[in-house]
Amino acid sequence: MISRSPDLFKFRGVVSPRNHRSFHHRHPPPPPAPTMSDLRPPEHQVAGHRASANKLGPLVDGSGLFYKPLQAGDRGEQERAFYEAFSAHAAVPPRIRDAFFPRFHGTRLLPTEARPGEPHPHLVLDDLLAGLQAPSVADIKIGSITWPPSSPEPYVAKCLAKDRGTTSVLLGFRVSGVRVVAPGGAVWRPERPELKALGTAGVRRVLRRYVSSVSGEVADCALAAAVYGGEGGVLSQLRELKAWFEEQTLFHFYSASILLGYDANAVSATGAGGGVRVKLVDFAHVAEGDGVIDHNFLGGLCSLIKFISDIVSEAPETPPLAP
Amino acid sequence: MISRSPDLFKFRGVVSPRNHRSFHHRHPPPPPAPTMSDLRPPEHQVAGHRASANKLGPLVDGSGLFYKPLQAGDRGEQERAFYEAFSAHAAVPPRIRDAFFPRFHGTRLLPTEARPGEPHPHLVLDDLLAGLQAPSVADIKIGSITWPPSSPEPYVAKCLAKDRGTTSVLLGFRVSGVRVVAPGGAVWRPERPELKALGTAGVRRVLRRYVSSVSGEVADCALAAAVYGGEGGVLSQLRELKAWFEEQTLFHFYSASILLGYDANAVSATGAGGGVRVKLVDFAHVAEGDGVIDHNFLGGLCSLIKFISDIVSEAPETPPLAP
Repeated sequence: MISRSPDLFKFRGVVSPRNHRSFHHRHPPPPPAPTMSDLRPPEHQVAGHRASANKLGPLVDGSGLFYKPLQAGDRGEQERAFYEAFSAHAAVPPRIRDAFFPRFHGTRLLPTEARPGEPHPHLVLDDLLAGLQAPSVADIKIGSITWPPSSPEPYVAKCLAKDRGTTSVLLGFRVSGVRVVAPGGAVWRPERPELKALGTAGVRRVLRRYVSSVSGEVADCALAAAVYGGEGGVLSQLRELKAWFEEQTLFHFYSASILLGYDANAVSATGAGGGVRVKLVDFAHVAEGDGVIDHNFLGGLCSLIKFISDIVSEAPETPPLAP
Repeated sequence: MISRSPDLFKFRGVVSPRNHRSFHHRHPPPPPAPTMSDLRPPEHQVAGHRASANKLGPLVDGSGLFYKPLQAGDRGEQERAFYEAFSAHAAVPPRIRDAFFPRFHGTRLLPTEARPGEPHPHLVLDDLLAGLQAPSVADIKIGSITWPPSSPEPYVAKCLAKDRGTTSVLLGFRVSGVRVVAPGGAVWRPERPELKALGTAGVRRVLRRYVSSVSGEVADCALAAAVYGGEGGVLSQLRELKAWFEEQTLFHFYSASILLGYDANAVSATGAGGGVRVKLVDFAHVAEGDGVIDHNFLGGLCSLIKFISDIVSEAPETPPLAP
């Protein structure tokens, strides 16, 4: 079932010349190649490997693009195949593609610090946090099951141990990374072992802290109404995504994450929903839906929605607009 | 997390004298004890052990009650604890309890053929198929995960093998039993190995056949509009259940089933929704929800809803009422 090579993502929509044009519209020729000096690890990365002298990791060029190195083994090809299929699929509503997914600009060989003289293929994607000056970011891996059903045994066992050892099985999601920038500039960013050890109460605390303005241990949820609630806020975006997941039977997004992003200063200045981002990322384990909804992602998404709507219900009203 | 003894289901609602009265209202003193000659295995049972000279199994008394023997080990006590907690819980909407769950009448020691001279405790429940003359029944186990998160390792491995070996992981549910009575009286009842071997297409075929009038291999879906669609039909009941599961954080229904029941003659005579039943059963693995929604059941329920709504969309319109 899991796609092992790009051609396993079959195009079920009719690929008419018109669709073909629309594919090219969505998948423009790659922009001019950046040089090594243009590229740097994204400052706001909260999950996954960080690019360094020893390791490949994502890079940004400061002009709105995000370069993700193709992962080893099948994963890189699998993720590329997903982006190609998804970008061109006639049955994906344009609104869903534009609102909730990074735009895909093809792949590109890039020089890297980790492998000098050996350019590595990268997915070229929109930088989802571009334009946010001091983004507060959360990476939330969705689904109680993170392994595609056709995975080989050792991989299932490895994932299952992680899913049971974190909150994935219990809550239908786990927080993989978080970074909160207070309006004053102070940054809170728990380490990965701390996140992995979270239980239900801990996850609730982190999701409250994500929309709090204080730097101490107590979360005031001052930004909950503006970031989570209201028009254009996280909750309304997650509910739109949920409506699509109740119907879509094209893809099953195993081990994908929802990335949340906002800028505390922008939100404080503009009030509800100012530039709050909700995006899906990490598609190395997407499988074909084959006419079945992604009940695993949908269940986790509904659980996240309940956590966040509980926080909005308990939180103070939207603070008055800044003068 | 999984309840190992009845007192693990804590009553979180305030148990005021009023709630207490309502508990007694819902949990009336058991009716007079039936004798062994009144009791017989239910004719329409499609899943679980069948009562015989060698095995305990459920019994009915023909007057609307269903006696389920307490299962061995913790399971029996666990299921009883669930029924007691659920019957009395102030936060369960009465409409949900009445529409979707068998009413619980306590436990009772009963003589059995399998263990003569050694009365066995039975849960006394409403017979969910009482009043249907020739019920067509489907037992659908919901959830891609059928083991409570706190289960010990060997139990997880055993369940996981079944969940992967059937459609549970892939579809979020599996058909555990089905029995279809055509208006003429012919019965179609596939054997368990056949049901276990079903894939996605096979499940779709069984769900179509469940609402078909023909006895052959081709499903005409003649009753789809009446049984699945329309006011009071399966789909509208499943959607009401779904709305509750999006909010309820009291219980996680691991390994529970949705039981569907209808009478082909009644449906043909009365048209849409006549006496179509949608009930939850099998609560030996229910865990406390602890403030988290049952994303696993909800995901599977949404997947089942999609399968059934696809069948309704493709099916012929409601047949004209019988003269």
